[in-house]
Amino acid sequence: MGGVFRFLTAGESHGEALVAVIDGVPAGLPLTEADINGDLARRQRGYGRGGRMKIERDQVHVLSGVRWGATLGSPITLSIANRDWENWKATMGIAVPEAGTAKKEVTRPRPGHADLAGAMKYGHRDIRNVLERSSARETTARVAVAGVAKRLLAEFGITILSHVTEIGGARIGELSIAWDELARRAEGSEVRCADPSAEAAMIAAIDDAKAKGDTLGGVFEVVAVGCPVGLGSYVQWDRRLDGRLAQAFCSIQAIKGCEFGMGFETARRPGSGVHDEILFDASHGFNRSTNNAGGLEGGVTNGQAVVVRAAMKPLSTLRTPLKSVDLATKEVVEAVVERSDVCAVPAAGIVGEAMMAIVLADAFLEKFGGDGIDEIRHNHRAYLDSLKSW
Amino acid sequence: MGGVFRFLTAGESHGEALVAVIDGVPAGLPLTEADINGDLARRQRGYGRGGRMKIERDQVHVLSGVRWGATLGSPITLSIANRDWENWKATMGIAVPEAGTAKKEVTRPRPGHADLAGAMKYGHRDIRNVLERSSARETTARVAVAGVAKRLLAEFGITILSHVTEIGGARIGELSIAWDELARRAEGSEVRCADPSAEAAMIAAIDDAKAKGDTLGGVFEVVAVGCPVGLGSYVQWDRRLDGRLAQAFCSIQAIKGCEFGMGFETARRPGSGVHDEILFDASHGFNRSTNNAGGLEGGVTNGQAVVVRAAMKPLSTLRTPLKSVDLATKEVVEAVVERSDVCAVPAAGIVGEAMMAIVLADAFLEKFGGDGIDEIRHNHRAYLDSLKSW
Amino acid sequence: MGGVFRFLTAGESHGEALVAVIDGVPAGLPLTEADINGDLARRQRGYGRGGRMKIERDQVHVLSGVRWGATLGSPITLSIANRDWENWKATMGIAVPEAGTAKKEVTRPRPGHADLAGAMKYGHRDIRNVLERSSARETTARVAVAGVAKRLLAEFGITILSHVTEIGGARIGELSIAWDELARRAEGSEVRCADPSAEAAMIAAIDDAKAKGDTLGGVFEVVAVGCPVGLGSYVQWDRRLDGRLAQAFCSIQAIKGCEFGMGFETARRPGSGVHDEILFDASHGFNRSTNNAGGLEGGVTNGQAVVVRAAMKPLSTLRTPLKSVDLATKEVVEAVVERSDVCAVPAAGIVGEAMMAIVLADAFLEKFGGDGIDEIRHNHRAYLDSLKSW
Amino acid sequence: MGGVFRFLTAGESHGEALVAVIDGVPAGLPLTEADINGDLARRQRGYGRGGRMKIERDQVHVLSGVRWGATLGSPITLSIANRDWENWKATMGIAVPEAGTAKKEVTRPRPGHADLAGAMKYGHRDIRNVLERSSARETTARVAVAGVAKRLLAEFGITILSHVTEIGGARIGELSIAWDELARRAEGSEVRCADPSAEAAMIAAIDDAKAKGDTLGGVFEVVAVGCPVGLGSYVQWDRRLDGRLAQAFCSIQAIKGCEFGMGFETARRPGSGVHDEILFDASHGFNRSTNNAGGLEGGVTNGQAVVVRAAMKPLSTLRTPLKSVDLATKEVVEAVVERSDVCAVPAAGIVGEAMMAIVLADAFLEKFGGDGIDEIRHNHRAYLDSLKSW
Repeated sequence: MGGVFRFLTAGESHGEALVAVIDGVPAGLPLTEADINGDLARRQRGYGRGGRMKIERDQVHVLSGVRWGATLGSPITLSIANRDWENWKATMGIAVPEAGTAKKEVTRPRPGHADLAGAMKYGHRDIRNVLERSSARETTARVAVAGVAKRLLAEFGITILSHVTEIGGARIGELSIAWDELARRAEGSEVRCADPSAEAAMIAAIDDAKAKGDTLGGVFEVVAVGCPVGLGSYVQWDRRLDGRLAQAFCSIQAIKGCEFGMGFETARRPGSGVHDEILFDASHGFNRSTNNAGGLEGGVTNGQAVVVRAAMKPLSTLRTPLKSVDLATKEVVEAVVERSDVCAVPAAGIVGEAMMAIVLADAFLEKFGGDGIDEIRHNHRAYLDSLKSW
Repeated sequence: MGGVFRFLTAGESHGEALVAVIDGVPAGLPLTEADINGDLARRQRGYGRGGRMKIERDQVHVLSGVRWGATLGSPITLSIANRDWENWKATMGIAVPEAGTAKKEVTRPRPGHADLAGAMKYGHRDIRNVLERSSARETTARVAVAGVAKRLLAEFGITILSHVTEIGGARIGELSIAWDELARRAEGSEVRCADPSAEAAMIAAIDDAKAKGDTLGGVFEVVAVGCPVGLGSYVQWDRRLDGRLAQAFCSIQAIKGCEFGMGFETARRPGSGVHDEILFDASHGFNRSTNNAGGLEGGVTNGQAVVVRAAMKPLSTLRTPLKSVDLATKEVVEAVVERSDVCAVPAAGIVGEAMMAIVLADAFLEKFGGDGIDEIRHNHRAYLDSLKSW
Repeated sequence: MGGVFRFLTAGESHGEALVAVIDGVPAGLPLTEADINGDLARRQRGYGRGGRMKIERDQVHVLSGVRWGATLGSPITLSIANRDWENWKATMGIAVPEAGTAKKEVTRPRPGHADLAGAMKYGHRDIRNVLERSSARETTARVAVAGVAKRLLAEFGITILSHVTEIGGARIGELSIAWDELARRAEGSEVRCADPSAEAAMIAAIDDAKAKGDTLGGVFEVVAVGCPVGLGSYVQWDRRLDGRLAQAFCSIQAIKGCEFGMGFETARRPGSGVHDEILFDASHGFNRSTNNAGGLEGGVTNGQAVVVRAAMKPLSTLRTPLKSVDLATKEVVEAVVERSDVCAVPAAGIVGEAMMAIVLADAFLEKFGGDGIDEIRHNHRAYLDSLKSW
Repeated sequence: MGGVFRFLTAGESHGEALVAVIDGVPAGLPLTEADINGDLARRQRGYGRGGRMKIERDQVHVLSGVRWGATLGSPITLSIANRDWENWKATMGIAVPEAGTAKKEVTRPRPGHADLAGAMKYGHRDIRNVLERSSARETTARVAVAGVAKRLLAEFGITILSHVTEIGGARIGELSIAWDELARRAEGSEVRCADPSAEAAMIAAIDDAKAKGDTLGGVFEVVAVGCPVGLGSYVQWDRRLDGRLAQAFCSIQAIKGCEFGMGFETARRPGSGVHDEILFDASHGFNRSTNNAGGLEGGVTNGQAVVVRAAMKPLSTLRTPLKSVDLATKEVVEAVVERSDVCAVPAAGIVGEAMMAIVLADAFLEKFGGDGIDEIRHNHRAYLDSLKSW
């Protein structure tokens, strides 16, 4: 939930709406629905998505917590209607539907999904009761929540970007470009890849997988620029920012790993080639010439960009289905096929941005306290000033 | 903190003692200090450790919550005394020491540590005020806490093991052996490596780094065997077990990444080569022939072994020190050298076991409720029975 | 938020809707909107309410978490639309309204409300930004949430009732009637009072206050019948059920005190006249002949009815206004008058039921674990059986 | 646990030690053991206490988190040794004792205690396994924790006092004296009563109860002076400060009710006689001439003194025992007699101060953020300054 910036999301994949309630947003933050819709649209793009993305075209509706263009300090409700609800009302409605109006129950669990474990845990015989909530469709609500978090962070000079570094084995090369240029390039790419030659290889890999009825995963990187020194803490394990970010990233559907800065590669190099030496000059204060730590030392931000990468497994629903067992008959069957995307890594990167923003907003509010934007601005500035003459 | 099995640790690296208080342990669990001391000893072994490990020889003292060999249901206090406290009393005592009795203040922050960011965050001028708590010495308390968690899990047939898969670039090969054989071999190895040829390469790498005054990181794997289907949940992001495990692992000092099952490799393979097909036979129920998911689908345990790997960066304190800047003088200096280990990956694996045990104990108690061991045993068995005929 | 049954509410008093998201409700619980609407209607009744109650006529809409008449285990969204929204859209909308369409800003803080402290805390100049959320209208969402909690508790034989014991000084006498008869009488009374002569005095007091432009408070009692022994715990202060109930009751708007069982009166009697002696008979097990403890000993339910009373202060908005100071001009003024009820104690009793249900549902799920109703039923029954032969 | 200032306590009544670990205390706060020992001693005084109080003479030992007279920002461990441990080692030790060395098991549950419900909940046959933790002895650890909280609050001009207003029916009259004079008088009274004539009546009541082998409860009042406007919040039920204080007070052993400001009396008066009118003058800003609200409006501090009263029931262990039933034999027996105090209300007032301090410290840190005392001081001052020119 988060400690200060806390929220709950709700909603089934084909239910009436996705909803989120956020508590802990300070008062006086300028906020419009457009601030949120931008990322909802970014989440729906990407080469290799199937037909449903077109139906969705998500739009947020703000139901509470914002008045006349600014937050009130009271909880914010975000709702994203299901544009296809009329077609799903019988199947997903609260009331028992008339015979013959609802879709059939789902009894063939998909490997790689919560289908089987979820059915057993909750005692469901119809797997639809599981998959409707375990679906990555739920991340739409997180992206909406993060629209608020990003708006808050932006007020304090913190921006978040993402790009895809790998799809189906095709990887980017070294890129020696500024973060904003990287972001600009990623935004312009159908696979959110900033390296044109890798981009072409990724698209080819997706086309190839599509032809084979297969799916692909990949790796994306999320970067937060402008974080002050001192978010998170080393004093208790659950306050370390690296741990909190890891939870946030690995809670995204289909993510099977995450790493910070140089990540797994640090396990393969000597210490002399890993740690970022400390520099100082009178005009900029303490600084580094490298950022292998990914902006986190001892679980605390060190003033460098926070860099997290996450590995996404291939989508679990293959057009050429995997083998499974029918829950009712116990016969060997092919797993149900719910949708037909080939690759969702570009979209997952936007969800990664969302989780980064949510964790940072929470840690930011913890550090600086305050209930209104002016008060927080004051606390933030005074802290930064104290570091300058440190 | 955890939701049911919650705890706080305390204590400075050279302070009087490390302490943990655990709330939420059910009543009637058999527990002795020996149950905990075993892992404290395992954490202190390992090729490539410096001299201090010999002084430490940690022993837990149980101060509350256990009576006549069994838990009471009330909070458990664990204390591990610092055997070298007399030598540190002046430096780390509560009272201001007499002039000349304490060690000098530390003003040269080490790259890779919380030293600089921690000093700025908390307003410390003496870096000792940071490093004493940010030190990995704190994990001793977590390992002690996990002694209780493991004892609880063992009662329900869940066991946890670890082994080292990589140090300084030397990796294990494919190992097609049973988990208990793997554990047995790791226990017998100075680097906790179950593959003899990799073990030799790891030891050579450590010797080489030592000769160069350098340090090494690596990768360890932690495995939980015997988890029931249905721990964790997909219904809300912060209840997903993968996320909770990721936080736990990435909150370990020096960990820069973690992955589940096939992990980052899933990003490179097609879906048809990743997902674990679902099988069924009348005597064993649902099963799998592969476990690429690492026992977690949709953030929920699926009955297979839970498998997590974590990447540890090289130790930040090099005998050949890194460049830094003195906090007081702002002059370029060499970072302070606090201790002299070359590689702590084998020990980190024990800490990884600890975090796995803590997260699983929490999720287990959430799932099964109950306040006494007999009550929990009843709930657990009834659930397992219901799955058999599922 | 609660630990297992956790929720957030949102919505301004004259905003588009009130919303709640509940996480942690088990799967398989039968639930309809009617289960919730009953209490929404009960909250809106009561002698001494002003005109707005008629407009409200609250109806819940379930947006997620329920399918075909039963819960899914996924989060439940409840929404209660503001039937008067069209008239408030300009004043409370997200967008800046056209000039002249919105109500004027509020600058005269009301004594007894959050108006002044809230404006200062959040930096609001228009008190509407405070009062729209601090209003007791918010309790509508809690009552809706409690509809779900009550439905869960009912499944396990736990029922909750309330009645008014005092309004404006008029009190009920000794009532030696069964709980269900008490509830029946309270339901039939305009002031929810089960004692006809006290009821008449309460109504007279309300009429009198109304004539004087004044307001009245009172006391209500909430009773939970059927709780098993062992909810809550004494092992850590924040797990004691009496504390958790006290938070819940004293978090209701306008509540200035609460008490358990004999309550404040226990402070005036000797121990021999307070404690409930312990009895036993073979057919019913352990029992008591009195319940001065109000069902709670040591912060744990003891199997007797849980009895809580709360004191509500008079409404803060008087038709004959109190003195205040204009925020903008700093001149002495009369406080703003937002609405015109004389007494809301009967309604507050329904909110008290809600908070009781929410706390008990949370404690119940903690004790019995489980994710589906069948699993919980099994755990519950096994525990009760174990006590029978205790 | 609290959100920012969070802690766990541990320890059995006759165990080796009571322990608390506190997380979230900022760095740079001056702290000595004497800051804590003062209140430990105050908790042990009071007319009507039995013999054990003399043995206890509690002294805290700080094991972590403090160095050279100031906090480090890392967790603080407090330990209070049991001075009588040698005599209890066999009975309460971790190891199974040698035959004949331990006290007999307890099988006669005391009405009014957790004895019976606790035994059933946790499955204990020996009630000692319950009473050792449910005992009010545990509050010693809370008082120690509050020593740290009070030290923090004092740094920001917030002080907390308490006095006894009622024992066994004897009550204080109107006292029109300043808070510091009230505190001074209470400190000088054996029953912590500031009204000399009531004090005499209280002592007489205690003597009388003692002669009869009976026990007495009473009421104490706790006051926090100097709280800034704006602690707590109305935006979500669980953030309201009145609710949080109510939980804290009603979590104290033997407390059966609490009230704020005019409390239950507000239920009996018209609104015109309850709400505190708002005043303003140029030199002091907004103010009130009465404080019936007890410093809390809408769940938020309003700048007036925070005033809470709590009702304590008579001690449950009477020298003339209550009737009970033996757990083993199911025969009617007299309840076990563990100790022999007649009245503990004066001591409970000190525990009340502790809970007030703990809740306020938590809310204070939430509001002002910050990690070091200097940073917090800056944030606090800037907020207060902004209110002056409000």
